[in-house]
Amino acid sequence: MAKSPEEEHPIKALGWASRDKSGVLAPFKFSRRATGVKDVQFKVLYCGVCHSDLHSIKNEWGNTSFPIIPGHEIVGVVTEVGPKVEKFKVGDKVGVGCMVGSCRSCHSCASHEENYCPKTIFTYNSINVDGTKTYGGYSDLMVVDEHFAVHIPENLPLDATAPLLCAGITVYSPLKFYGLDKPGMHVGVVGLGGLGHAAVKFAKAMGVKVTVISTSPGKKTEAIERLGADEFLLSSDPAQIGAALNTMDGIIDTVSAMHSVMQLLALLKTNGKLVLVGLPEKPLEVHAFSVVGGRKTLAGSCIGGMKETQEMLDFAAKHNITADIELIKFDYLNEAMARLAKADVKYRFVIDVANSIGK
Amino acid sequence: MAKSPEEEHPIKALGWASRDKSGVLAPFKFSRRATGVKDVQFKVLYCGVCHSDLHSIKNEWGNTSFPIIPGHEIVGVVTEVGPKVEKFKVGDKVGVGCMVGSCRSCHSCASHEENYCPKTIFTYNSINVDGTKTYGGYSDLMVVDEHFAVHIPENLPLDATAPLLCAGITVYSPLKFYGLDKPGMHVGVVGLGGLGHAAVKFAKAMGVKVTVISTSPGKKTEAIERLGADEFLLSSDPAQIGAALNTMDGIIDTVSAMHSVMQLLALLKTNGKLVLVGLPEKPLEVHAFSVVGGRKTLAGSCIGGMKETQEMLDFAAKHNITADIELIKFDYLNEAMARLAKADVKYRFVIDVANSIGK
Repeated sequence: MAKSPEEEHPIKALGWASRDKSGVLAPFKFSRRATGVKDVQFKVLYCGVCHSDLHSIKNEWGNTSFPIIPGHEIVGVVTEVGPKVEKFKVGDKVGVGCMVGSCRSCHSCASHEENYCPKTIFTYNSINVDGTKTYGGYSDLMVVDEHFAVHIPENLPLDATAPLLCAGITVYSPLKFYGLDKPGMHVGVVGLGGLGHAAVKFAKAMGVKVTVISTSPGKKTEAIERLGADEFLLSSDPAQIGAALNTMDGIIDTVSAMHSVMQLLALLKTNGKLVLVGLPEKPLEVHAFSVVGGRKTLAGSCIGGMKETQEMLDFAAKHNITADIELIKFDYLNEAMARLAKADVKYRFVIDVANSIGK
Repeated sequence: MAKSPEEEHPIKALGWASRDKSGVLAPFKFSRRATGVKDVQFKVLYCGVCHSDLHSIKNEWGNTSFPIIPGHEIVGVVTEVGPKVEKFKVGDKVGVGCMVGSCRSCHSCASHEENYCPKTIFTYNSINVDGTKTYGGYSDLMVVDEHFAVHIPENLPLDATAPLLCAGITVYSPLKFYGLDKPGMHVGVVGLGGLGHAAVKFAKAMGVKVTVISTSPGKKTEAIERLGADEFLLSSDPAQIGAALNTMDGIIDTVSAMHSVMQLLALLKTNGKLVLVGLPEKPLEVHAFSVVGGRKTLAGSCIGGMKETQEMLDFAAKHNITADIELIKFDYLNEAMARLAKADVKYRFVIDVANSIGK
């Protein structure tokens, strides 16, 4: 008979889990594996609250195995290293994002794109090689293979850096991969949430002209004055849309609600690229005319590899990019989730894990 | 008052036109402009019958201005050149495809991509700079700016080369642009009509492994034995589809009927590209998961520029690529259109224009 989450591993751990699709989070005792030869063990200091966490605790994608401890924007301090660990020592500031394992031998892994490995082990709601479940960063400590941990640059504040481990790399990677990082280019950002606000910051730091595209006129001021976007486009205004047709080299689309991608494709120049990083639940409609006429592209992107995640953090350090956050303690977590469901946060909740997990 | 098509220009011409959405084609007297300083005038020898012609004569895309003379896969022999023509002399074999004009000054034109110029003048059903309508290659002679004419290489048969001016460049261009031309790659071709059979030939000549994807089991033999495809995938067979998931670097999708692009996206490897060159009338459904998970791309492509069209013909000459055709005379044209509507042709009708237009 399988052991309980509390007994299956030797290291006692405490997290906050959702036990059913109500999504209510509450303290949950479990355990972590002993620190392996290539593992780092670390005390979790901060963990960002990603919209994926909200989907997962309510089983909205239909793939949740309860109980689930979410959290994949994790920053901590190393407390123990295995004998063959090379990158880290005790006391180092460490970050873990959406992945804690992959096959390490496929074409994607060999290309530093572990995120596209067919055997990626995700940080939570996934199965470890030993058959046990993975539990995320809403917990007091973690043990991961050093390959899946990154260094947090010295000059970055730990709390506001945590969201970069998912939201940051999710937008940085497509800007680079799809060549939307060239100074003077014009890139649209759709949706001004955790991902969108990070996209504006990274794209601006790359020298790109950024237009925020939104259904909410109230976001114009914050897009331009707070985040530094160059322009704001109200997608419900036909006149504004009409004037912006064929003007953008690319668009990073962070929206997970249903929306018109054909409208967005029309904003692209010839050879322009619309990159989806959000996951609407139902299929989107795309007319062939929308992509054929101007040789346009509807593409996707999913987080980023470990090498690129470190590169993203180093870029963030150089350009002083962090997330705009609202720091919370665990006793506020369920309320924060309710607010996140209404997009009522600027722009990311981050849990002050070390100062509130056992209290 | 505007002059009639027969009187608006000085050169008498005879074509076959559709006068209404019945799509019935019949002889039609009209006129061509006098040969301008940069123009070549040529006698039309052969003209391919493209599926676009069929859509247009019945106004199925809703943009037809009757009367319409279709035809944009045109091969002829030069009979007169303007005083500043540099590329051609009388007697040269000449080809004209889908375009006869563009602005010549925009970014696309400057990039040898006149096909993406917002002011492209199409070979038929378009408006010339002088305000008159353009009439296509189902006619005895044409007058075009030499920029929009290409040389037909000596070793290519004129009749079977005509379809390359549209079908050929439409598949050659995306194979090159999307980097699907590397030896050892694996490319799928969906739809085995005029475009699809050309895609198989070009991709094979590029050294690519080609799998034909079709709903018709009867096409397996012709795909492999006649056209030289490496494999055949019956898209209605779940077992065959299951075995082919994540195996292709790219797919050229020539189908204009509604079909599942999500199934095709699933056949792509990580970073794979599905390129639409057909134009289904209604929007296609694309789930974000289909492109995000494997960083896949749904893209489009529309014919090709003049420089690339010449390059395509030179490549075809080097590799002995021509279309498989059924040569017809004008008195069979309406019957040919009825057969084309049923996809009953292997793989392109070509009209023997010079030997049947006035007879």
